[in-house]
Amino acid sequence: MGQNVVEVGVPKFQLLPACEDDHEGVIVDMKEPMDPNVFQAMLKASLSQWKLEGKKGAWIKLPIGLANLVEIAVKEGFWYHHAEPQYLMLAYWIPDTLSAIPANATHQVRIGAIVMNDKRELLVVREKIGRYWGTGIWKIPTGILEEGEDIFTGATREVKEETGINTEFVDVIAFRQKHRYFFGKSDLIFLCMLQPLSFDIHKQDSEIEEAQWMPLEEYADQPVVENHCIFKHIKDICLAKIERGNAGWTPLPITSLFNDQISYLYMEEDLKP
Amino acid sequence: MGQNVVEVGVPKFQLLPACEDDHEGVIVDMKEPMDPNVFQAMLKASLSQWKLEGKKGAWIKLPIGLANLVEIAVKEGFWYHHAEPQYLMLAYWIPDTLSAIPANATHQVRIGAIVMNDKRELLVVREKIGRYWGTGIWKIPTGILEEGEDIFTGATREVKEETGINTEFVDVIAFRQKHRYFFGKSDLIFLCMLQPLSFDIHKQDSEIEEAQWMPLEEYADQPVVENHCIFKHIKDICLAKIERGNAGWTPLPITSLFNDQISYLYMEEDLKP
Repeated sequence: MGQNVVEVGVPKFQLLPACEDDHEGVIVDMKEPMDPNVFQAMLKASLSQWKLEGKKGAWIKLPIGLANLVEIAVKEGFWYHHAEPQYLMLAYWIPDTLSAIPANATHQVRIGAIVMNDKRELLVVREKIGRYWGTGIWKIPTGILEEGEDIFTGATREVKEETGINTEFVDVIAFRQKHRYFFGKSDLIFLCMLQPLSFDIHKQDSEIEEAQWMPLEEYADQPVVENHCIFKHIKDICLAKIERGNAGWTPLPITSLFNDQISYLYMEEDLKP
Repeated sequence: MGQNVVEVGVPKFQLLPACEDDHEGVIVDMKEPMDPNVFQAMLKASLSQWKLEGKKGAWIKLPIGLANLVEIAVKEGFWYHHAEPQYLMLAYWIPDTLSAIPANATHQVRIGAIVMNDKRELLVVREKIGRYWGTGIWKIPTGILEEGEDIFTGATREVKEETGINTEFVDVIAFRQKHRYFFGKSDLIFLCMLQPLSFDIHKQDSEIEEAQWMPLEEYADQPVVENHCIFKHIKDICLAKIERGNAGWTPLPITSLFNDQISYLYMEEDLKP
């Protein structure tokens, strides 16, 4: 296809290959290199045709190797929808109505891991990087979920990576939503209770300065904990767990209506069948 | 700056203007047009300089009006980090170590609104668009959070938009995490209980086919509810609320350690100070 010489004023049948989506739109998944002038002519012709057909959203997925076509798509009215390391997705709303193209992902999801041993000691770390670096504050291990990772999986993974401690997921005890956290995006952190299965700490060198089992009282005595911030609530959550066996929400696997996919519904045990 | 003619083999001092970030990296926020050749020469010189200085991550923010520079940045080794309608962010890891550049936002966040009146009737809709269109299924109102929107705000907004009903947020009763939901991204839906403050339905025309107050038994009798899916759990949640006054998690405003920003920690009432 990239070999064809196509004039501007291209015949109507020389269109970009497109699939239909579930919302009366079209998706062009560009895979092979194409001369920018040819791409422009075919894109113009395609847009005219899609408009005639009453299509709504138009999408172009450009792998990073076709970065030379980005400028053309933008010239024809496309805007950036989202990007991943290996591709850029552009979008265009064809009708003369308000765009109904959905927003990009808006949240980063993190876990905070509350790991207590039976001596009322909390697993804490001092970080080498990020906001807490240099503050001297001891905090619980936290980390960002990887793409497609479940909360309960990410929690045990992060604790293992940062401290070498093996754990079993118990429940989610709280979550916090915070805005304008990074690049204008929001952050959701799920505080997870984990049961330690091992106790010898082997800290990660790249991100963790120090790691230790710290008596809960000592954690609570840090000046930072007295403020009305998440540290104080973590202390209260630990005490509620020790003193009242307070329980959080646990994941229940559920099936999709539309396919075989399993997802997890987190709720209190009493609500489960 | 765009007027200067700069040769390749540019003197070391002709660097792109860059700010430092909190992680030993640099951020170039391009605002004005620049000749692509000039941009390339300055980028090459800047990368050499940043490497000498031991910088780690390098970022280039290109507004959509500078789409002609995307190809150059990619040629110099940058990849796509994320994009919003009006800009593309590119990233590059300078050291000879594994990249520690954080991932893009991974989750869309939605709310599902459970609104019951005191006649054991549930507020339900039939959608005109999306996966449920044409299935005949009555479902609770759902919607995507807007950028920077709190869960409790989004829940009342969506119910108002779709049905015209005014509500007061009560609590979050469960949440579901599902992967590969859209463009490979994940979805988190928070099921929220809302108290209706008005009862006359004025449905939205663009997305909603029908809306009504439906007896809970009738909702539960839909064939879809008998499957082991989220519908069945919504019915059980409603019954637990009616029969046992079952409570979920409510938001508590908390302050940041680092600035004046307020965020919300959702947890059970018993854990609150």
